[in-house]
Amino acid sequence: MRRKSLNTATCPVARSLDVIGDWWTLLIVREAFKGASRFSEFQQGLGLAKNILSSRLRKMLADGILELRPAAAGGSHLEYHLTHKGIQLRLILIALRQWGEDNLFVSGEPMTTFVDSQTGQSLKRLRPIRQDGTEVGFRDLVTKLVVAGEGVD
Amino acid sequence: MRRKSLNTATCPVARSLDVIGDWWTLLIVREAFKGASRFSEFQQGLGLAKNILSSRLRKMLADGILELRPAAAGGSHLEYHLTHKGIQLRLILIALRQWGEDNLFVSGEPMTTFVDSQTGQSLKRLRPIRQDGTEVGFRDLVTKLVVAGEGVD
Repeated sequence: MRRKSLNTATCPVARSLDVIGDWWTLLIVREAFKGASRFSEFQQGLGLAKNILSSRLRKMLADGILELRPAAAGGSHLEYHLTHKGIQLRLILIALRQWGEDNLFVSGEPMTTFVDSQTGQSLKRLRPIRQDGTEVGFRDLVTKLVVAGEGVD
Repeated sequence: MRRKSLNTATCPVARSLDVIGDWWTLLIVREAFKGASRFSEFQQGLGLAKNILSSRLRKMLADGILELRPAAAGGSHLEYHLTHKGIQLRLILIALRQWGEDNLFVSGEPMTTFVDSQTGQSLKRLRPIRQDGTEVGFRDLVTKLVVAGEGVD
């Protein structure tokens, strides 16, 4: 991946891919949502080599996706927690999950799905919706150059 | 990435990551939506080495994300086109794009955004919505084991 060209790109997809780096980042986010906060918990959940996990966690701290906080239970060690920016990545996990649910399982296979912990309700499929609330087709989207921080429309 | 454990995983996120493989796949999908269909068009759009592009395109054909069709203009060559499964990947591009728009640009930077080609309207932020239409918080989602092809709830 050509880091330099991607992190200065005007395309937010390219920048996102540059920050997320490789899939381990998203799987680490997934583990954090499951409750992992210690190095050993991420390692057990992912079965990832220590040196690779260590470099991914360092990058995620530098990118502001994770932050270190003192252990909730007291003691001297620090725990990894998702920042607001990291929490927002869950939408990408939902999108990946729903595409997988729809396209990569045959009927009858065991599969995990997201449900609301409060009500047990499942999620609707994410759909691209215009500002007026109507759905737009995937083929009807085009890119437009704008200035960040200014609204389009 | 541990292929075997991911493509038989019950977690659709893991399977999706296994199929998408690396970020080039999504950037190839992005180029296809921009109108690329020939090898040379993908290569120009991405600046990717021929051998890497060639292996990614082969994998995407095998995975049913792209398909080969005779050139629209006639002639003997074949073009790469997105399948229905490939078109559905655009939602993941939208999710990546919106996260990037929100988190990776400082005010005033030039940035591309998606707009509806018909009306010029921008898209609403994708949000996780329960079946009853209400929004659920990212922290309130838990995974549940289900059987593919059967509804939850």
